[in-house]
Amino acid sequence: MNERIKKISSWMKDSNIQLCFITNPDNVFYLSGFLSEPHERLLGVAIFQEEEPFLICPAMEKEDAKRAGWPGEIIGHSDIDRPWELVQKAIAKRNVSIEKVAIEKEHMNVERYEAVSNLFPNASFVPAEEKMRTLRLVKDDQEIKKIREACALADYAVEIGVQEIKEGKTELDVLAAIEYALKKKGVNEMSFATMVLTGANAASPHGTPGLTKIKKGDLVLFDLGVVVDGYCSDITRTVAYGEINEKQREIYETVLKGQLAALEASKPGMTCAEVDLAARNIIREAGYGDFFPHRLGHGLGISVHEFPSLTETNSLKLEEGMVYTIEPGIYVPNVAGVRIEDDVFVTKEGVEILTKFPKELVTI
Amino acid sequence: MNERIKKISSWMKDSNIQLCFITNPDNVFYLSGFLSEPHERLLGVAIFQEEEPFLICPAMEKEDAKRAGWPGEIIGHSDIDRPWELVQKAIAKRNVSIEKVAIEKEHMNVERYEAVSNLFPNASFVPAEEKMRTLRLVKDDQEIKKIREACALADYAVEIGVQEIKEGKTELDVLAAIEYALKKKGVNEMSFATMVLTGANAASPHGTPGLTKIKKGDLVLFDLGVVVDGYCSDITRTVAYGEINEKQREIYETVLKGQLAALEASKPGMTCAEVDLAARNIIREAGYGDFFPHRLGHGLGISVHEFPSLTETNSLKLEEGMVYTIEPGIYVPNVAGVRIEDDVFVTKEGVEILTKFPKELVTI
Repeated sequence: MNERIKKISSWMKDSNIQLCFITNPDNVFYLSGFLSEPHERLLGVAIFQEEEPFLICPAMEKEDAKRAGWPGEIIGHSDIDRPWELVQKAIAKRNVSIEKVAIEKEHMNVERYEAVSNLFPNASFVPAEEKMRTLRLVKDDQEIKKIREACALADYAVEIGVQEIKEGKTELDVLAAIEYALKKKGVNEMSFATMVLTGANAASPHGTPGLTKIKKGDLVLFDLGVVVDGYCSDITRTVAYGEINEKQREIYETVLKGQLAALEASKPGMTCAEVDLAARNIIREAGYGDFFPHRLGHGLGISVHEFPSLTETNSLKLEEGMVYTIEPGIYVPNVAGVRIEDDVFVTKEGVEILTKFPKELVTI
Repeated sequence: MNERIKKISSWMKDSNIQLCFITNPDNVFYLSGFLSEPHERLLGVAIFQEEEPFLICPAMEKEDAKRAGWPGEIIGHSDIDRPWELVQKAIAKRNVSIEKVAIEKEHMNVERYEAVSNLFPNASFVPAEEKMRTLRLVKDDQEIKKIREACALADYAVEIGVQEIKEGKTELDVLAAIEYALKKKGVNEMSFATMVLTGANAASPHGTPGLTKIKKGDLVLFDLGVVVDGYCSDITRTVAYGEINEKQREIYETVLKGQLAALEASKPGMTCAEVDLAARNIIREAGYGDFFPHRLGHGLGISVHEFPSLTETNSLKLEEGMVYTIEPGIYVPNVAGVRIEDDVFVTKEGVEILTKFPKELVTI
């Protein structure tokens, strides 16, 4: 049993849970090292208080799961098997009386819930999410290493994008050049759909890259991330194409000031709210509070959005090893959209900034 | 009330269902014209037997939903609202006594199920999927038009890929060129992660594009699709780089013969099984039955995999207006991987083939 599974078993003992059945692919990866997107097919890790855990996956992925390092029992199911019967047999073999089951209630669908409820008609079902989030909150050295690599590639992507900005180029032209360069380096997955937004599009909180041409006097916003060995990065930079006006510059400088203040405030013992407010108060004082409509940032790891959530009300205290984004933004319709985002890793005394592309206003 | 919603209301009357609450974004798009990926936020369409349906969505998307053409009530919820209370109020206003509720059991998660069960503690819950699948099975002219455009772009993508094959290029090089060219044409979403696979990688049923270099004597497999206005295409072509050996050629010709036979068999009144078997029997007779481990094809539309499913046991009869893929394949480890896939649309007498890239073996 690995350390992560041991921690769950120990939580199960404290909470009188006899079975924890994890099916969210990100959590399965965290617990087993096996990264897979099984779509409608069943993939899960079953954990007990004392007995050996098992993994169930599509039969054709059994070898992959073994190669990924799962040392225990692996049950493969083909498309003609009834996977829940296999789960039931594997549990029966372990001879445990199941009274309380932990499942991911935000992930498992009703059809599966009905199937698992049928296996244990007298059991109660409790959520497993909170425990998984807490476990994943503090990253180990191996995880940091992967996130660091993903961040270096995100820096490279922004560099390519900035080089690509020229008269007449569209948002999608620049986006295409970025992803082309990344694929040439062997990247085969982005953390989310890459954003290159300009002008009015960047000033809307949910623009989509399209055939809008970049023109002199525009701000261009890049928001992108790269996945390396299952771990995500997430960077945002906003650059100027030609001379921008004073209002645009004021907005840029306000966001940057807020971003730097939040970086400064980030250290073990500070709450998420204090870090959010370090940036938010600067933006409010500058009169742009209403134009910063989202949280300061979010945790980052196997999922591009995970815990902690940096909102102005989250009293969770930062700890060494947490990784999160700091990404204040100001969006004034038809004036400017600016966001500046770094990924940081909490150290003993503060944070290490993992994304390194310059933040002083770059003018092209 | 649009025609699609009227059909659901009529089914609800027949089945004594008082509320149908649809939350799968593909189904919400089908019913409302509003295409949105709300992630963890609630998006849904509520349908009744007689009363006006309503749409609930994140507040910041309310205007988008209106623009998309939803004519009825739209309830926007902000991040501090309790969306299920808003749903409850909107239903209470309609003064319907709710005894049976249809939900998508394969889509709705347990957390939401518990929330909606709390609103109607005495109601029973039945699945809505089957009805939605049946409704979406036959496409109308507007839908066909979009799929046709998506198929033309898929043809173009394969053309670009074929042009890009040269000594020393990697799978990801070719993939990068394809997506670059598509983005230049304004495409901002693929149906799924584009596949460019070569050599041993193509001969595995679940290869991932990487830094493998294409070399003389290899087969190169492209599997990709483009999304146009919410509708998907899906094409596979396999081409030869340089001279291939006799075994590879035999495999190619067998797959092609099977594919053509399935096209020939496709017409209204034939069952999905008969079409699958038209290809499968040819492949079996050639001795490759064990190396064709998947179904012949799948329906295509808003989802890249939808109904009908073309398996050797599906007795569903083809009808005019259905759209599906025909994609037999043979994968012999370390020898060859070949798949040839078209998207077809069932007409009065047969099918129209929507993907047009040549299928006779192309040698580069």
